[in-house]
Amino acid sequence: MPADSGYAPRKRMPDEAIVTLLTDFGASDPFVGVMKGVVLSLARGSALVDLSHDVEPGRIADAAFWLAQAYPWFPAGTVHLAVVDPGVGTSREALVLRAAGHWFVGPDNGLFEVVLRRVNSFECRRLDVGRLGLAPQSSTFHGRDVFAPVAGLLASRRLDFEGVGPRHEPLATHRVPEPRAVDGGFEGEVLVVDRFGNLITNVEAPTLGDLETTRVEILGRMLEHVRTYGELSPGGAAFVVGSFGQLEVVERDGSAARTLGAQRGTPLRVHRQA
Amino acid sequence: MPADSGYAPRKRMPDEAIVTLLTDFGASDPFVGVMKGVVLSLARGSALVDLSHDVEPGRIADAAFWLAQAYPWFPAGTVHLAVVDPGVGTSREALVLRAAGHWFVGPDNGLFEVVLRRVNSFECRRLDVGRLGLAPQSSTFHGRDVFAPVAGLLASRRLDFEGVGPRHEPLATHRVPEPRAVDGGFEGEVLVVDRFGNLITNVEAPTLGDLETTRVEILGRMLEHVRTYGELSPGGAAFVVGSFGQLEVVERDGSAARTLGAQRGTPLRVHRQA
Amino acid sequence: MPADSGYAPRKRMPDEAIVTLLTDFGASDPFVGVMKGVVLSLARGSALVDLSHDVEPGRIADAAFWLAQAYPWFPAGTVHLAVVDPGVGTSREALVLRAAGHWFVGPDNGLFEVVLRRVNSFECRRLDVGRLGLAPQSSTFHGRDVFAPVAGLLASRRLDFEGVGPRHEPLATHRVPEPRAVDGGFEGEVLVVDRFGNLITNVEAPTLGDLETTRVEILGRMLEHVRTYGELSPGGAAFVVGSFGQLEVVERDGSAARTLGAQRGTPLRVHRQA
Repeated sequence: MPADSGYAPRKRMPDEAIVTLLTDFGASDPFVGVMKGVVLSLARGSALVDLSHDVEPGRIADAAFWLAQAYPWFPAGTVHLAVVDPGVGTSREALVLRAAGHWFVGPDNGLFEVVLRRVNSFECRRLDVGRLGLAPQSSTFHGRDVFAPVAGLLASRRLDFEGVGPRHEPLATHRVPEPRAVDGGFEGEVLVVDRFGNLITNVEAPTLGDLETTRVEILGRMLEHVRTYGELSPGGAAFVVGSFGQLEVVERDGSAARTLGAQRGTPLRVHRQA
Repeated sequence: MPADSGYAPRKRMPDEAIVTLLTDFGASDPFVGVMKGVVLSLARGSALVDLSHDVEPGRIADAAFWLAQAYPWFPAGTVHLAVVDPGVGTSREALVLRAAGHWFVGPDNGLFEVVLRRVNSFECRRLDVGRLGLAPQSSTFHGRDVFAPVAGLLASRRLDFEGVGPRHEPLATHRVPEPRAVDGGFEGEVLVVDRFGNLITNVEAPTLGDLETTRVEILGRMLEHVRTYGELSPGGAAFVVGSFGQLEVVERDGSAARTLGAQRGTPLRVHRQA
Repeated sequence: MPADSGYAPRKRMPDEAIVTLLTDFGASDPFVGVMKGVVLSLARGSALVDLSHDVEPGRIADAAFWLAQAYPWFPAGTVHLAVVDPGVGTSREALVLRAAGHWFVGPDNGLFEVVLRRVNSFECRRLDVGRLGLAPQSSTFHGRDVFAPVAGLLASRRLDFEGVGPRHEPLATHRVPEPRAVDGGFEGEVLVVDRFGNLITNVEAPTLGDLETTRVEILGRMLEHVRTYGELSPGGAAFVVGSFGQLEVVERDGSAARTLGAQRGTPLRVHRQA
């Protein structure tokens, strides 16, 4: 039977927050639904939005990347609940971050490293589960037993940042690689392949210089810039500035990943005009 | 960083609309979640409902068919946000339709052709993104940069139909084929295969005549009518009047698609009693 | 066109219930979205939560198991809408259960057997569709035509338990096997395999005795207890008390199902200390 959180369920409050969820739990088993039950028990008026539950099991880097891309499209005050947590039940800490007006809740394992890399400042607290009255019912599902209750309490504004626990410095991780400046440009790599087979890389648009003269070399092919898919001939590959500001390698009406034989980690080189 | 839409986020309003979402973005990447963040930023009180995000990439016809089947089951005033948009960033128009008391938002590429075919009248406006203060942040993700903000503004009743842009005639497309009258019946085809392997066709029930004497011929097999799956012996195939009023070919406890070797586009012939 | 339910849509009410959905409809076709449209038409203020739509088609036992695990994590008053219904359109009954302060709506085919097994008492009514003014539009999609309207009416508090129909005794089914006491322990089996390849069994933790001396034998391997995944060496297999109180067989950073060659129905034996 579920834990009695010690916090009474409440009627819906009009000012409760949006809560996003990002996990590697998949959508086939009811794990995510159960987490939502816990959040709604504490914050009936929150709005729940799935970012993804199809993160490859345990692949923290992918979640860290997508979270940093996604969160700015939500209003300030949103609570982002992220659980990719292969160390669940071990001594890894759990934390709440405040950055750019948003709240982030999850394990301290690098999940938030890209968010942190991109903000000017942040505050972080370590979850003090005893003080919060959260006695985990399990040692394998802290998404339900620890993170969802904290997200619900934050969303319902019954828990403030100071109440979370003591100040804490997040682990210094480097799971998502950054591009490296080399003679005449950059060396980067493919971070993720999206559903369309587009290759989303770690190279950010502002570093690209004049797009018309820049070339991107990947697996022996030299690619030019197009503004959008429709400018390509079918089967043609090129690079675009993707919708989140990253360099992406794309193919029209096809999968660049399949055609080029590229995957996560495939290196690429950006050649800027001499 | 996200666009400043120029429209301030608001508290939840009790009369905000339901917003449905239908895309080919998949659920593995956070694209749909980001669109929801944009809608909720503008219409915090809207209720978001996924129709599907697993439309085969770029297959406008499937989305057009399902949208027409699904929308009547929502209350009048619902905003239907549909984005299957292989021409994103090119000169294709974006539009808002009003039909049967519902709102439809998406690219002008045939996505709404089945909706339009089935209503007596409709109104259509072309999105004037400049006038709406929407400066797309990307040329590849108008779902987020154009369609989601418009859906949010419509859902929150801050944008009325006249404010969308000038009157517009949607493209005359014919992506979803219609059955053809032939001697003694009809020739139709399989439009989509559902999760159970049922073959959903373009033949509509009212054209079938007396179901008891009608026969459906597909891939050399002649099928009779049953009222529901339970009337079939296991492994048996037959046709039913499907839940959306279409002729469907089904197998009990199995996949008609697999057993018959049928797929999207497979022709069938309806033989009505002489 | 959709049925006119005879119940007028209403503005959002602050006290409307959470409605969970558990089906075998998949998320690729808009069937679930349409059910949500029907629920929201009747209970605009309800909060909809997906438990899963990826139940293997027709596999009632899996849904019955997961529903019993999931529902206690929602607040009392939640309406659980479960539709795995291979007998749709035949003479199987439809029912509404009240148990542990929750509402359950679905076909009377065993879907609720694990919920019923675990509660001290329950009440059950048979759906009287005529009395409720529900004339199913189809004989194949009662999820939309019968169960969703009833869930919406219950969630909006316009239908009370007595109004559902006459008292009814649910079918006595035994789809989810229970472990069997044998000399020195128990014989159980794998009920489901989760996304991580963990084997979730029908053996419940309180029956295990002293975890340190208990051994679990499966496919010729003898496994010891660990408290959480992190205590295992990579590739090592062991058993844990899972997050829902079941014995689970797990592997660190891998799939126990794949490594051991186990699947649903694989037997296991619990050896308790002599």
